[in-house]
Amino acid sequence: MDKTKNTLAIGIDLGGTNLRIALITDKGEILKKNNYSICEDRTVATVVSKLIHGIQKLIEDSHLDLNYIAGIGIGAPGIIDIDKGVIISSPNLSDWKKVPLRKIITEKFTTKVILENDANAAAYGEWWMGQKKEPNSLICITLGTGVGGGIILDKKIWHGADGTAGEIGHMTIDINGPLCSCGNNGCLEVFASATGIVSRTLKALAKYKESILNQTEKEKLTSADVYEAAVKGDRLAQSIMRKTGEYLGVGLANLVNLLNVEAIVIAGGVTKAGDLILKPALEEMKKRAFCVPSERVKVAFAELADNAGVIGAAGLAHHLSSSVKVIQ
Amino acid sequence: MDKTKNTLAIGIDLGGTNLRIALITDKGEILKKNNYSICEDRTVATVVSKLIHGIQKLIEDSHLDLNYIAGIGIGAPGIIDIDKGVIISSPNLSDWKKVPLRKIITEKFTTKVILENDANAAAYGEWWMGQKKEPNSLICITLGTGVGGGIILDKKIWHGADGTAGEIGHMTIDINGPLCSCGNNGCLEVFASATGIVSRTLKALAKYKESILNQTEKEKLTSADVYEAAVKGDRLAQSIMRKTGEYLGVGLANLVNLLNVEAIVIAGGVTKAGDLILKPALEEMKKRAFCVPSERVKVAFAELADNAGVIGAAGLAHHLSSSVKVIQ
Repeated sequence: MDKTKNTLAIGIDLGGTNLRIALITDKGEILKKNNYSICEDRTVATVVSKLIHGIQKLIEDSHLDLNYIAGIGIGAPGIIDIDKGVIISSPNLSDWKKVPLRKIITEKFTTKVILENDANAAAYGEWWMGQKKEPNSLICITLGTGVGGGIILDKKIWHGADGTAGEIGHMTIDINGPLCSCGNNGCLEVFASATGIVSRTLKALAKYKESILNQTEKEKLTSADVYEAAVKGDRLAQSIMRKTGEYLGVGLANLVNLLNVEAIVIAGGVTKAGDLILKPALEEMKKRAFCVPSERVKVAFAELADNAGVIGAAGLAHHLSSSVKVIQ
Repeated sequence: MDKTKNTLAIGIDLGGTNLRIALITDKGEILKKNNYSICEDRTVATVVSKLIHGIQKLIEDSHLDLNYIAGIGIGAPGIIDIDKGVIISSPNLSDWKKVPLRKIITEKFTTKVILENDANAAAYGEWWMGQKKEPNSLICITLGTGVGGGIILDKKIWHGADGTAGEIGHMTIDINGPLCSCGNNGCLEVFASATGIVSRTLKALAKYKESILNQTEKEKLTSADVYEAAVKGDRLAQSIMRKTGEYLGVGLANLVNLLNVEAIVIAGGVTKAGDLILKPALEEMKKRAFCVPSERVKVAFAELADNAGVIGAAGLAHHLSSSVKVIQ
């Protein structure tokens, strides 16, 4: 293992179900990675204890001297006070209110610690290691249960004034559209998330008596079922996937018209649908956006899959000083 | 006149109808300003000649020594190659194709020249002199014949990869909405521009037989007529203005959810409608956007009116090195 000073960092992806802890070089290479489930108990005490033990195990197993690491980067879900390193609240972690996670980990390991929102960390990972050459600007859209995102401008995460920037899923694209979980109507998330795919399919099923999706129990229907039925040639499923791509394309058009970014990366489970969603998305984007920014932007699926979070978090630790203000 | 080195700059606002040339201090104060009409002849030769004579006149009238100015800033309409200082094309100026305006003016006056898109220059002006304290991030939306905009992030204009960023008016907010002049459907511009106000009013007139707007010749109806009728209590006009505000509010919600900016400034002729448009816009924004970014953002009408362009262009010249890369 290369022990040249500061060529290693620890990248942590703290999700609602998984805790991933990895040792990552300054070239983005994962040397070691451990996954822990946090499903059974998501309280602060248990998760922080697992986090500390996981870091300790990684350090011991790798015979790491903390003087030889650039730092620890943590991507965590919810609202984060980036400057203070505090998790303000997190819908996916119970009882997490104003947890000063950076302070806790800094004091335990006496190394630089950086705390970031998980979607931003994943976007940073895709920007750093998912592209042939780091672009100046990149937006990462995650299509999962919801639609999340992270925005990289001028090679830095754009946090906004309060760290809440990047809510790509909650851009209204249909002023009269269905209600979103956020309380708004017609958000991109309503249409392009896995949840949106399922709910639109369920609504349309009655009209498509011949659809093989009628054979699946309604309560158990997933977006993967819809995708698989589309691959098999099911007319309803194909129409739903195409429409999902078109909705996504409207979102892409808005982003390129507004920000003229170099790259947009699409991540998350829904990307398994591949060209069934990407092709109509690109067509719709080109139809709606101005030529110059829509011809410029490189839209592609994410490269790093589940590793985007740990790689991005480690990347932030490697690039710490230039990426984020740190107020201890 | 203060002749301390570099405390003065020339700010130029080159529009489709007016050419404004002003001498402006590094505190944003306008010492002298001349307006020229370019309506009769918008060809390159005539406009460039007017521009050069206008600058010469300002220099002579103010007894300016070019060694004592920070530079000349020019805001021009259309697609601009910022790095090269070239107007690629401009819908409002006839025969303007790849005009190297920066080079022309630099060679003539042997001083630093900066060429910027006019909407960006106005946004920069509002950021620099329209706010009590320069915010870190600001978006300026101009509601006129069309809907334009400029985005300031990290105290710099966000140009995007090709300089086309800031097309706020061409964000789809109604996927099934009416056709926009850009070829897309349901853009913010379709609803919130002066043109949109007029066309929605004309469509609704038949249903509102009692509306005083029926007394105006349809071909001559303007958004100002609609605003004035709303002030007089006309039910149709009030409903159109309220709805315009709501559409604008959807755009505001998208911007704050995406970028979590500190300030949004609304400029352009439509702002004459005042609270008739601002109140419903703010209500709609708060209804649709997340609490943290929508409570944070300060939304207000522009402060500088017609001077935003010249002040912003001069501001760019004053702050040249930090604002824009200049490749001669």
